[in-house]
Amino acid sequence: MRTILMIALVIALPLASLAQPEVPIEEWKGKTILLIGAHPDDDSYSMATLGILNANGNDVHIAILTTGNVGTLDPKLGMMDLALIRKQEEQAALATMGIPTDHYINLGYDDGMLEFEDKKEVVMKLVRLIRTIKPDVLFAFDPGKGGQRWHKADHRTSAYLSADAARAAMWPLMFQGQITLEGLEAHMVEEYILFDSADKDKDTFVDITGWEDRKIDAMSKYVSQFSSGWSDYKGPDLSEEEEKEVKSQLRKWIEYRNGIPVEGFRHYKGLPDNIGR
Amino acid sequence: MRTILMIALVIALPLASLAQPEVPIEEWKGKTILLIGAHPDDDSYSMATLGILNANGNDVHIAILTTGNVGTLDPKLGMMDLALIRKQEEQAALATMGIPTDHYINLGYDDGMLEFEDKKEVVMKLVRLIRTIKPDVLFAFDPGKGGQRWHKADHRTSAYLSADAARAAMWPLMFQGQITLEGLEAHMVEEYILFDSADKDKDTFVDITGWEDRKIDAMSKYVSQFSSGWSDYKGPDLSEEEEKEVKSQLRKWIEYRNGIPVEGFRHYKGLPDNIGR
Amino acid sequence: MRTILMIALVIALPLASLAQPEVPIEEWKGKTILLIGAHPDDDSYSMATLGILNANGNDVHIAILTTGNVGTLDPKLGMMDLALIRKQEEQAALATMGIPTDHYINLGYDDGMLEFEDKKEVVMKLVRLIRTIKPDVLFAFDPGKGGQRWHKADHRTSAYLSADAARAAMWPLMFQGQITLEGLEAHMVEEYILFDSADKDKDTFVDITGWEDRKIDAMSKYVSQFSSGWSDYKGPDLSEEEEKEVKSQLRKWIEYRNGIPVEGFRHYKGLPDNIGR
Amino acid sequence: MRTILMIALVIALPLASLAQPEVPIEEWKGKTILLIGAHPDDDSYSMATLGILNANGNDVHIAILTTGNVGTLDPKLGMMDLALIRKQEEQAALATMGIPTDHYINLGYDDGMLEFEDKKEVVMKLVRLIRTIKPDVLFAFDPGKGGQRWHKADHRTSAYLSADAARAAMWPLMFQGQITLEGLEAHMVEEYILFDSADKDKDTFVDITGWEDRKIDAMSKYVSQFSSGWSDYKGPDLSEEEEKEVKSQLRKWIEYRNGIPVEGFRHYKGLPDNIGR
Amino acid sequence: MRTILMIALVIALPLASLAQPEVPIEEWKGKTILLIGAHPDDDSYSMATLGILNANGNDVHIAILTTGNVGTLDPKLGMMDLALIRKQEEQAALATMGIPTDHYINLGYDDGMLEFEDKKEVVMKLVRLIRTIKPDVLFAFDPGKGGQRWHKADHRTSAYLSADAARAAMWPLMFQGQITLEGLEAHMVEEYILFDSADKDKDTFVDITGWEDRKIDAMSKYVSQFSSGWSDYKGPDLSEEEEKEVKSQLRKWIEYRNGIPVEGFRHYKGLPDNIGR
Amino acid sequence: MRTILMIALVIALPLASLAQPEVPIEEWKGKTILLIGAHPDDDSYSMATLGILNANGNDVHIAILTTGNVGTLDPKLGMMDLALIRKQEEQAALATMGIPTDHYINLGYDDGMLEFEDKKEVVMKLVRLIRTIKPDVLFAFDPGKGGQRWHKADHRTSAYLSADAARAAMWPLMFQGQITLEGLEAHMVEEYILFDSADKDKDTFVDITGWEDRKIDAMSKYVSQFSSGWSDYKGPDLSEEEEKEVKSQLRKWIEYRNGIPVEGFRHYKGLPDNIGR
Repeated sequence: MRTILMIALVIALPLASLAQPEVPIEEWKGKTILLIGAHPDDDSYSMATLGILNANGNDVHIAILTTGNVGTLDPKLGMMDLALIRKQEEQAALATMGIPTDHYINLGYDDGMLEFEDKKEVVMKLVRLIRTIKPDVLFAFDPGKGGQRWHKADHRTSAYLSADAARAAMWPLMFQGQITLEGLEAHMVEEYILFDSADKDKDTFVDITGWEDRKIDAMSKYVSQFSSGWSDYKGPDLSEEEEKEVKSQLRKWIEYRNGIPVEGFRHYKGLPDNIGR
Repeated sequence: MRTILMIALVIALPLASLAQPEVPIEEWKGKTILLIGAHPDDDSYSMATLGILNANGNDVHIAILTTGNVGTLDPKLGMMDLALIRKQEEQAALATMGIPTDHYINLGYDDGMLEFEDKKEVVMKLVRLIRTIKPDVLFAFDPGKGGQRWHKADHRTSAYLSADAARAAMWPLMFQGQITLEGLEAHMVEEYILFDSADKDKDTFVDITGWEDRKIDAMSKYVSQFSSGWSDYKGPDLSEEEEKEVKSQLRKWIEYRNGIPVEGFRHYKGLPDNIGR
Repeated sequence: MRTILMIALVIALPLASLAQPEVPIEEWKGKTILLIGAHPDDDSYSMATLGILNANGNDVHIAILTTGNVGTLDPKLGMMDLALIRKQEEQAALATMGIPTDHYINLGYDDGMLEFEDKKEVVMKLVRLIRTIKPDVLFAFDPGKGGQRWHKADHRTSAYLSADAARAAMWPLMFQGQITLEGLEAHMVEEYILFDSADKDKDTFVDITGWEDRKIDAMSKYVSQFSSGWSDYKGPDLSEEEEKEVKSQLRKWIEYRNGIPVEGFRHYKGLPDNIGR
Repeated sequence: MRTILMIALVIALPLASLAQPEVPIEEWKGKTILLIGAHPDDDSYSMATLGILNANGNDVHIAILTTGNVGTLDPKLGMMDLALIRKQEEQAALATMGIPTDHYINLGYDDGMLEFEDKKEVVMKLVRLIRTIKPDVLFAFDPGKGGQRWHKADHRTSAYLSADAARAAMWPLMFQGQITLEGLEAHMVEEYILFDSADKDKDTFVDITGWEDRKIDAMSKYVSQFSSGWSDYKGPDLSEEEEKEVKSQLRKWIEYRNGIPVEGFRHYKGLPDNIGR
Repeated sequence: MRTILMIALVIALPLASLAQPEVPIEEWKGKTILLIGAHPDDDSYSMATLGILNANGNDVHIAILTTGNVGTLDPKLGMMDLALIRKQEEQAALATMGIPTDHYINLGYDDGMLEFEDKKEVVMKLVRLIRTIKPDVLFAFDPGKGGQRWHKADHRTSAYLSADAARAAMWPLMFQGQITLEGLEAHMVEEYILFDSADKDKDTFVDITGWEDRKIDAMSKYVSQFSSGWSDYKGPDLSEEEEKEVKSQLRKWIEYRNGIPVEGFRHYKGLPDNIGR
Repeated sequence: MRTILMIALVIALPLASLAQPEVPIEEWKGKTILLIGAHPDDDSYSMATLGILNANGNDVHIAILTTGNVGTLDPKLGMMDLALIRKQEEQAALATMGIPTDHYINLGYDDGMLEFEDKKEVVMKLVRLIRTIKPDVLFAFDPGKGGQRWHKADHRTSAYLSADAARAAMWPLMFQGQITLEGLEAHMVEEYILFDSADKDKDTFVDITGWEDRKIDAMSKYVSQFSSGWSDYKGPDLSEEEEKEVKSQLRKWIEYRNGIPVEGFRHYKGLPDNIGR
């Protein structure tokens, strides 16, 4: 079966679909989903989509590369403090969306330093993750973002390394130790939802009608990032007044298309090698 | 002469030609051509063009960075097996096009790992190659591919390092050891044919009329890549039936413009520093 | 104050201005300006603008990453010779524009090798610079240049590392040693003038009327780069004839919009993280 | 308790014991033991000791850095073949000694390349291992081997990185992500058994009387390394004749002191920082 | 003069003195001294000697590579807290010895990570320091420590990089940017006092009679390192009782030879290349 | 044959000979010899031995890692000048000893920077050299020098990388690209002459009676290193007076044992892995 699929894929190589998924994302069932991001809040781009997928019986996993331990202007917080706060925020956000908090994986790198870590090692770890979780669909930062202007170093790095890892994971002869010694198998991710894409590249929009409030609730858990907690953290609970203000701001960030609330992505299906086509 | 040329180039710097070559590629004679690719089949993008150039009395050299030793899903093949198979495939393809098989150079890196090799060393080796072969024209992956979305890590790396090497090769004070100890001279590559370009960037199309079958024959030698050999390799010869099927598929990949079979490229002529303009 | 600004910025994050500066650059006063470039002549893109800013009472600093010590085809020049020549050329150009020559900082890297240096260290040094000079505005190579095709390795590297450093400098928990041991403070650069942008990205044009001759005079000091000195250096003074020819050429490089001589840039104001938006 | 121990250790710092363990190793009970080696047979130096410890109710874990996938002169074997063979050999040897085969951990690096891997990442992984297993005693290659002449690159690297990891593991502020995100705790290894020491440095000898045959049986499982299998591997079972010959050779390697069969080590107890004193 | 000295040194190369300094260290006057260490307390090995040298009219500078920001078991302390505490401790210790606190330089690296930093960059910075301060004598960790067994990674790294930097600093063609752009000159350090040497290598002992109490006072400032502050830091002042206990312990660490309190070193004078002979 | 030898070697592993070669070096015939050094004069340690071997019909090759391009205090010399001078000096020295000058190979690295180059790449190049020249005997810096105190960074690096390369060269599965694509074969170097050893480690002394003058003549060619040319280079020919002085000094460096002029080495024969035993 797989062999036939492979041959088919090879033969079909230049025809790799860039269009909408055959089945709308809102209707997916029984898929395994892995999201790779840089910081414990990078699921914000697809928060409602993840919630919908989870609710529909898909198995959603969130892997974050850094602990987010430098993202504060509050002089009272040290790196360990912030790492712990952001872990709790991430788990609270996932819980709000109904996603099991033990589906949250963090690779433990220092925030802001991802660009300087050994790239072969980060890719090797992401390959291990892909070969372990065996996702049908990978959610990742879009490596083709915005005409590729510079953007946030960790996001850029996360985008590239996710794509590189997806590519490497399918080859049994790459990172062989995982196969011979750890008992994993090569795994090809065939479908991709790329987030934080340039507007002109977004080709797939998930209708999140009915999930707006829950998304806002979830994102409001990122108190250290999206509130005055950024410069003066006072704990996970905002004052009633500020919570209202923050949610009001978060509500403004929701994207609409033809009056429908959406989350927009670039979709890709095919050989990992051709993500960039 | 060179001095005058140089001054002229400096003065003319912002005017570097992005247009078609003055003499159509089909009519070039007596030029030295160097192609740099990542895998032993990356000459596929320009296979007919290389054949035409060779037939017209140009001196064509093919330098490939990796041995291609992980590109299989066939569990029977180890890395050494695949490296040997792909060497033979590459040489068979070149022979089909009439290009001397000893014009094939391979730098011996492991497939899929180019991104992680020491970039200074790879550039140094490519500079040595450029200073040794002294090409008039460099064929390379287009570093400006497709709005620069991510594509196959080895291709991206090959694109960047080729451009970086072309730039470095012209300066006598870079990689001095090659000049003082190895007796090489600085060399400026003045013309570039960039392949695997984004469609919108292709500005030069080589008419390959009459060379289609030979191109297909050559590409059909890559049995481990473009046939069921990808997942179940049974030797360099395909069954009659599969050979027919593979060639039929390869034929579909031929690009046509106004009914004429072509290979399309981005052309650049001028200071290496300005390839990206 | 800062705290409030920060909250405001966070709240306003997706609205970061990509438009013209509120006050035209020609009218800025009392600002601290830092330019980061790769070579001792990379201020050419903004030479007149820097002169105008300096004349208007802004504090202009020029930081160059490499000594420019391989940029010659003159076999008589060694690396030390060229480094010294280019230092003097840079200082002469700045003096011509009225900028204090001791505002010229050079990080001392070898020309052409920036791509291969340890990026964490280069960023750390640029962060130190930003935290020391505390610029209101950063001039830097545009990391979003031209659809991001490859361009000159040092320029590309300078672009990326400048943006990365601007981002890192604002976080007190990054490169902590500068804060705890060297007594520096985190500093957020809020405004950016990006040079060498793609034409389509230029959105800000400084009227340099009245400064054309001075710009040409300043640029004509780069004898080792913009004259026959490139291949046969005979000292900082050109023959009367060649000086005339060089200036005539330099004059042709001046950009005009609606008949007005300008220098064109991409302008950005907001959180460093969003430069690429 | 720990605090008091720490203070005691600090105060006692220059007095760190280099002598024999207070309780002879043969009598240890209830300890957690971690061995770090480079190849799947590096437990040979301490095979009987490990067996004795395991039999006496200690919890023995074996962590090997590489898969051992290049250690053959048999042209029939590829890297994946050899990795699998050596995994089975290692597990067979442990089983022979009564040690649970699932106490065998392999980090999956390529054999012979450890020196070239990113050292920070390898140390980070070993620190994770130490913080997870929390060994009372670490078995490792002696970093002070033999007047420190060069020896086998992987062994040297394994020695240094093991010592570096033991040192780092005790500090909560190093590799913080393991603590904040993975829920591990800093752990100080207080006792060390260093193997492959120079003869003059061996100060601790374990009496392996009664375990000689079992040690020889265990080591004879390493067919790909200690038999004609090195150049012509024919499977895990040797001919009766060769098995006899191999065992006879292995028997000669057993070390005797005063007529007693022993395994000799350098012992160290105290702050990890002082291993080298 | 220098030239003649150089020739003399070359001719005398194999005769480089390993004996005692010609003039006893206690009698040195007017020399410039630079100490390079890894942590803010690594001057402890030579604390009294530095005090004596300073009192005798020598110019003493202390350069420390890391901020010491992980050396605590106190969970209340973050990295920034500890860095600030250790800076104050270092300055208090120097003040106690009469050494100007602004002679304290810190390169700002993270503690425990020196082994993983880019070694070329660290050497380049130490070379800059040597060329700026132009020491007659370098105090450094002994790179030949103790038969070279492993010791504390930062110390080992500091030892090697100090020796490498001393060697590089003398060559005008190394790190040329410092000379061409920063106006520094090559500088050869001709004399070395190596601390933390193996006992068998110590050949030079400074009589510190009369300085014992002051040394103990100075070292007792390192409250976060040499007291219960290691695990429970309560500020720079110890209780009377604990201060007494700590000083009593520190007193025990003073080394005596023939009843005389000393600090012992390996002394070397000659070409930096031969430090290891 | 080889297989049998291999088995014999494995079986004999702990018995690897550290004694004198079976046949005295002075009587060797028909062997292929490769020397690896760091600088173009590192053959000085074994100059007469190489001359004797060459005269006796052995095939002697000299491979030097760096061009030696920073080893001068003469401000008149740039890096390219010095590289050319030292190439000529090396060739003149070899010619004096009767060794063909085209047996001189230089890998072209910058002097003083070897420690900072990518070690995997340097080892890969040395492995290629070993597999091409297939030496019976390798001459190299002793990696076990002098209790392993620090010595000249390039020498130390050359020592380690030579040993690492010798080890790697024997395994067909290491650096496979050389075997699959370049047609080389794995090669085991079985015998080693290690130079610049600590006195206590020298166990093999070559009687150079009759070759002293020629050795001195050869070494006197290194004018830029062993004469006033070090600080004031005036060309390859010394004044008669200085030549006399230099040779008189060089004569003093000749080592005598029992009145016989010798060159002393550490000899090793056996598996490369055990060089350090």
